[in-house]
Formats: sequence, structure tokens, C-alpha cells
Amino acid sequence: MKGKPKSSRATALSHIDAQGNARMVAVGAKPIQHRIATARGRLVCQPATIRLLKRRALPKGDVLTVAQVAGVQAVKNTANLIPLCHPLPLSHIEISFSVRASSIEVTCTVETHAQTGVEMEALTGVSVAALTLYDMCKAVDKSMSIDDIRVIEKIKK
Amino acid sequence: MKGKPKSSRATALSHIDAQGNARMVAVGAKPIQHRIATARGRLVCQPATIRLLKRRALPKGDVLTVAQVAGVQAVKNTANLIPLCHPLPLSHIEISFSVRASSIEVTCTVETHAQTGVEMEALTGVSVAALTLYDMCKAVDKSMSIDDIRVIEKIKK
Amino acid sequence: MKGKPKSSRATALSHIDAQGNARMVAVGAKPIQHRIATARGRLVCQPATIRLLKRRALPKGDVLTVAQVAGVQAVKNTANLIPLCHPLPLSHIEISFSVRASSIEVTCTVETHAQTGVEMEALTGVSVAALTLYDMCKAVDKSMSIDDIRVIEKIKK
Amino acid sequence: MKGKPKSSRATALSHIDAQGNARMVAVGAKPIQHRIATARGRLVCQPATIRLLKRRALPKGDVLTVAQVAGVQAVKNTANLIPLCHPLPLSHIEISFSVRASSIEVTCTVETHAQTGVEMEALTGVSVAALTLYDMCKAVDKSMSIDDIRVIEKIKK
Amino acid sequence: MKGKPKSSRATALSHIDAQGNARMVAVGAKPIQHRIATARGRLVCQPATIRLLKRRALPKGDVLTVAQVAGVQAVKNTANLIPLCHPLPLSHIEISFSVRASSIEVTCTVETHAQTGVEMEALTGVSVAALTLYDMCKAVDKSMSIDDIRVIEKIKK
Amino acid sequence: MKGKPKSSRATALSHIDAQGNARMVAVGAKPIQHRIATARGRLVCQPATIRLLKRRALPKGDVLTVAQVAGVQAVKNTANLIPLCHPLPLSHIEISFSVRASSIEVTCTVETHAQTGVEMEALTGVSVAALTLYDMCKAVDKSMSIDDIRVIEKIKK
Repeated sequence: MKGKPKSSRATALSHIDAQGNARMVAVGAKPIQHRIATARGRLVCQPATIRLLKRRALPKGDVLTVAQVAGVQAVKNTANLIPLCHPLPLSHIEISFSVRASSIEVTCTVETHAQTGVEMEALTGVSVAALTLYDMCKAVDKSMSIDDIRVIEKIKK
Repeated sequence: MKGKPKSSRATALSHIDAQGNARMVAVGAKPIQHRIATARGRLVCQPATIRLLKRRALPKGDVLTVAQVAGVQAVKNTANLIPLCHPLPLSHIEISFSVRASSIEVTCTVETHAQTGVEMEALTGVSVAALTLYDMCKAVDKSMSIDDIRVIEKIKK
Repeated sequence: MKGKPKSSRATALSHIDAQGNARMVAVGAKPIQHRIATARGRLVCQPATIRLLKRRALPKGDVLTVAQVAGVQAVKNTANLIPLCHPLPLSHIEISFSVRASSIEVTCTVETHAQTGVEMEALTGVSVAALTLYDMCKAVDKSMSIDDIRVIEKIKK
Repeated sequence: MKGKPKSSRATALSHIDAQGNARMVAVGAKPIQHRIATARGRLVCQPATIRLLKRRALPKGDVLTVAQVAGVQAVKNTANLIPLCHPLPLSHIEISFSVRASSIEVTCTVETHAQTGVEMEALTGVSVAALTLYDMCKAVDKSMSIDDIRVIEKIKK
Repeated sequence: MKGKPKSSRATALSHIDAQGNARMVAVGAKPIQHRIATARGRLVCQPATIRLLKRRALPKGDVLTVAQVAGVQAVKNTANLIPLCHPLPLSHIEISFSVRASSIEVTCTVETHAQTGVEMEALTGVSVAALTLYDMCKAVDKSMSIDDIRVIEKIKK
Repeated sequence: MKGKPKSSRATALSHIDAQGNARMVAVGAKPIQHRIATARGRLVCQPATIRLLKRRALPKGDVLTVAQVAGVQAVKNTANLIPLCHPLPLSHIEISFSVRASSIEVTCTVETHAQTGVEMEALTGVSVAALTLYDMCKAVDKSMSIDDIRVIEKIKK
């Protein structure tokens, strides 16, 4: 094991203890830092769905606002959704949309001053905002999917 | 508009009323039917992550069980997550996993006897189970994404 | 007690039992009926706040949509907020706004097919939508109040 | 715009960004301060309802205690109810009642050591406590309303 | 397997499938019946704690009412607490207390008209009411325990 | 009262104010300290249930993992379950099981850096994990009980 503790730790699943049990990671000894995470994903749909959204709904912003509110609420609810996530104080949540020809891209940025990061919060915000868009478009489009949800930036100051 | 009410209805966004406001769809007049929906998606990760999961965690089933429980709980919580979803009685929820070389496929089936379907519940179960897998693997794999979440079957009896 | 059971019941607090203990009312023996309740209330604010809302926010509908989503979510959450309320299936929820010179009127209609009514759900929807409007306007208006929340219609079919 | 940034900021809706989108306000740069907010409102009812409460329920305190517990729980739940509210640590919550001839006045005080204030928490506590009183009295009084919910004090130390 | 499917089923863990995976039991094919369950348990404490409760708090009923409200809310929340529990409509919840020399006995009865029973709801109500009593007495009694929580009656009509 | 304020405080119920009203204790003036609490309890069942668990479920760890996840989630949810509990940041949660001949012992340790302790969180984790075990075994064992839930260690650094 000599000389290898670090790489051994690097390949361990942090939520699995030596007996193979799931656990929450202890973060009490880590310093409180300003942490920012941004995640992104997209709802892929028919071009006709996008045109309909633009003609009927986007002028009033309603569909995107409903998804935005749902995403923000989900971010605050992350520790209840993801079992081994820590409940964290959150100083900022922002969800924005980019409407393309046959998809709506969702981006979520979350900030905290805490002992652990907020990438799960950002990913959860993207996922629930995309699910909410899906819900509002599903009556007119039976072939949608939610794709490529990933962390695009993680900052620790 | 003559002769076209049906197609006009078919292209309307059901959650947007005539004034462009978001709303919950009234389902009180629809018959109660046995409805089943299955959704699927996958966590894409490094082959090394899958090998680590198999060696360290899968023998005890813990990682997948944690994700399964999180998904089941999220299914029951769907109407709190997706603003315009109806709260529905649920008679069955099942979440299963298929571990592949560089991904874990998540499948969720939900059943109800209700006036509206459960595809949002199934999609929510897949999303949160995948997010939970992501959370437990993120310490060892920085390049994961959640992909191709979609409804694969919808039955009304 | 002869001849007076009805009026005696009529003046009893239904949530207080013979020993003075709080309790949830048993509704299992009541018939399932289509029940609709509408409640209304208003956020009273400065005329300048209304003008600002109209100029900056109302064109996009965002402020009202955020309040509408919050109200709908609160309606679904009523039984968790009001201790002795029954959890009920809800077939329809609608929240609308009427913007006046120095107030925003909030109206909420809720429908169920259940053994007990939904007036608490409608009142909760109005209250939380009004609180959400308050939250979004409080940076510019320090003198707001929420007023006259009441049931305006209750129908049993 | 010269010379006017301050008044321009003063009249901006803090939850609406330059594009008119709803957002949560970033508070990460604000100092942590001891903040106290008190809100008040009242349930207006028939004098007979008050007499009944006093005769049947108030001796045991149950009706008021149920409303108090509901209010305290709602305060802790504020960030889940009001979409753009921050989740905050709360060091103290107090809800009290003043029973008058034809109304019950509800007062809620909330304290935090945080980067933003707790007036929404205090207003939410008053609202839900009043809704709970309404629920417990509605079987005997069909003409109640909830009135004049407002912040009566806000302190920052 | 001949002749033994029934007894084999009788000894199977209903929440574990043939592959050993946890799952929610499918209840869609079971008839809707009136089901009642009663559970009981007790908080064991010092006689001095009981005397203090009687002198300071019981006259107003507050401590028991707070515990009662907490128990009722927990009953409604059972499916969110116990992962493989079905969300059920509940037509009646009742929580009562029996104060003894060195314990407080908690009894909870829950009723539903559903496809599966409510014993978990009744047990959850007892547990959370007892935890709430513990919380309110812990400043004066360091040696309490919660004991003997069990189902005492289960009826199916 | 001379010379006795301390002992008088020591015998007061901290959640009951001078008027006998329930209240949340103000903790704002207490120092933030590292606090750890451990609670324990057990599900008492038939030896045959334990044998069945070992043969069918324990090899995969599923039953215990489901209970563990439920307990962890309940710990995070404590302030919503116990009305007068403060919401606290939690830096670590650990739930473990010891399977005996006719019982399963549940141990829960919770850590925080806060102004008040986490014994209610640890007790809640034990209670909900035990209820979850009960739920998964109830189809095969009708005589279980949950016993002897108590705090076994409380540390303040």
C-alpha cells in the first residue's frame, strides 16, 4: 500500500464504506468555501413543437417560467431527492433556457458557501426543469427525450 | 376554423389556456382507467467506473438499491416536483437497472387507476435514480452524463 | 338532548372531540361527490408598484406566472400545511389574477371528487400566491398587505 | 443613466432580471447579520364563534395550539412554498394569538443569522396559522375571512 | 413447486423480488376495502417528568396537542418516509394519549378505503408522536426511551 | 426565588413558556459547536424472520440498504416531523445494523456544527429505519415490535 494511499482513495466510491455499505460522506472537517456549479441538458423535440411554443406560449414566457420555477424549487429540494446528498445553504440559483430549432437547452447555476459542492443541485435543477418542459409539451409531441445532462463548470474559490 | 376543431385541439399546448396562462388540465370528466407507463434513460460513465462498481459495490447491491429507493420516492413525489402534474394514486412502481460496459440503464414502470397517465411519474423515477447513481460515482468519474430519458411504453386498459 | 341533536351538532367545532382534543374528522361514511370551491383575496400595494409590474414584468407574465405556480403547488400541499385537513385527490386547480390600480386580486378554484370539500385548498392557493407576489414586490414596496381572503363559492354536485 | 443608478436600482423588482426573467436574488456577498421580523394578521369571524371557542376549546388550548404548530411548521417550510425565497437557518420562531370579540389576531416572530431577512417566513407563519384556525372553525361559521396580513417590525442588528 | 405455491408465497418477503431486489408490491388487482389499523407505543420517562407535565403543561393540553398534531401530520406523510409504502387516501386519523405514572402511552388509529392496509401509517403516527413528546421533555429528563411500538388491531371490512 | 433560578430553570420544560404555550426554543445566543449524537433501537421479530432475511435478502444487502436510506432521509427531514425542532445543517449521518437471533438493532449517528444538538435527528433516523424494516418483514411476521429507542451517546466539542 506504500506510496499509494492517494490513488487508492482516488478510485474509491466515496459513498461506500469498507463493508460495502452506503453512507453519507462526513464533510465536517472540510473548509467552508465559495462553490459554484453549472449544469446543462436539453429537451429534444419536434421543430413543430418549438414553433408552437414560440407562437402560443413564449411571447408570454409562461412555459419557460413554469419550468424555471420548478427547477429552482427542485434545487432547494435536492437533499430530499438524492439520499446521500448533504443539505446545504444556497446563496444563489439561476436557471435559463436557450430555445433552438428542435430542442430547448436548460442551464442551471447554483452557488453555496459550504463544505461540499453543489453539482448535484445544479444537475437536479436541469433535470426537473426539463421534465417540466416535457410535461407541458407532451400533449403535442410524442417523441421527446431529455438528453446530455452534465456538469459544465465547477468552481471553488 | 370550420371542420378543424379536432386538429386545432391536437396542436394546442394543454397546459396553456386561451390567454396564454399556464394551468393544470381539468381531468374530472375523464374515465378512470388502468394506466401503465414505462420510461428509460442511462447514466453514461467510464468503463473503469463500471468495473469499480462491480468490484466494490455491486456484490452487495447497495449502489443500485440506493438509486432504486431514491427513484421510487421521487415517483411518489412527482406532483410536488412538476407543477402542473396531478397528484395520482399509484398501485405499482418498479425500477430496475441494466449495467453495461460504460453505462447503467435505468428503467421505471408505474401503474395507476386514474383519469390521467403516469408517464411523468416514470420519467421522474428514471431521472432521480440516474441522478442518485451520478452522485455516488462522481468522486471517481468526472465525465459522466445522463442521456436519452424517454417514454418507451404507455398502456391504457 | 331530545329534539336538539341537529342544532347541537351544528354549533360544535368539528375538529374538537368530547374531551376537547383536536382530531381529524372521519369522512369515510360520506358519499363521494363532485365538489368545487373558489376563494379570493388580494395583495394591496402602492400604485407605483403596479405601474412597475406592468412596465417591467407583466409584458412577460413572469411575476404572475411564478405566483400562479406557487399557488398551484401549495394547493396540492394543503394537507401537509393544515394539520387536520384530509389529503384529497384533485382533478382541477386554476389560479388567476386581476391587476387593479393599487392591488392584485388572486382567485383560486379547486375541484375534487371526494368525501369532503376543497375550500381549504382554494384558500391555501390564494394565500401562497399572494405571499409569492409579496415576495417579488417587497424590494420596491414596504407597505403592502394581504387582505380579505375568503371563500366566494362552494358547489357540491 | 448618469447619476441615477441608485434610484434606478431602488425601483427595480429584485426577482426580475434585465431580460424580464424571474430569478432568485444572489445574497452570497451580503454580510451575515442577526435579523428579526414580526408579521401580524387576523381571522375575522362571528362573535358566536369566539364564544364557542372560549367555551369548548380555549380552556384546553387545543385550537390555538394546533394553529401554532401549523404556523411554526410553515415557517420552516417557507422556501418550499415561496419559489424565489432562500432557504435560511432559523434560530427562533414564535407564534402567539390574541382572541378578540370577533377576530383572532395572529402574530409571528422569526429570527435568523443570515444574509437575507425573514419577513416572508413571518408572513407565511401568520398565513398558515390563520388558515388552520379557519379550518377548525369553518363547520360553525360560514362568513370568515383572513385579513390584513402585514409585516409590523423588521430588525437588523 | 407442486402443491406448495401458497405456503411458499406465505413465507416470501413481499418487498423482495426473485432477484433479491427491493420493490413496491403491486396492489392494483386487490379489492378496495374499508381498512382500519391501530398501533400503540409508549414514551418511558421519570415519574418527576410526568408530575412536571401535569403541573405545568397538561392543564393547557399543549404538550399532548403538539405531539398529536405531529403524529397526524406524520401519518399523512407515511409514504414519503417508508420507501416501499403506497400513498393511500385516508378517511380518518386519531391519536390519543394515556398518561401513566412513569410513561405516556400513545395510540393511533387510521382508516382508509383502499387496496392495502394502514398499519404502517398507524405505527408511523405513534412513532412521531412519541418522538415529539421526547423532544419536549428532553431538557428535564435524560433517561427516556420509546418502547414497545406495535400493531394492536387490524380490521378489514 | 432567591438563590434558586438555576434549579428552577433546570426543571422547566424548555418548549413551554410562562403562559403554558408551546414554543420553539431560541438558540441564537448559543455558541456553534461540533455536536454528535448516537441513538439506538431494535426491531424485535421471530427467529424465522431473521433466517428468511439472511437467506433471501441479506446476501444482497437490499433490505438493510432500503432501511438505511429511509433512515438517512428521515434524519434530514427531522425538523419537518418534530414541530419544535430547529432545522440544522448536518455534516454527517451514519446508520448501521446489527442482525441478532430475533431482532435487528439499528444505530444512527448524526453530526452537526450548530447551536443545538442532534439527538432528535438520531432518534428519528433509528425510528424510521426500524419502521422501514417492519414494513418489509410484515408480510411474514405478524408479531413484531419496535423497542427501546434511546440516545446512547451525546458529545459536544
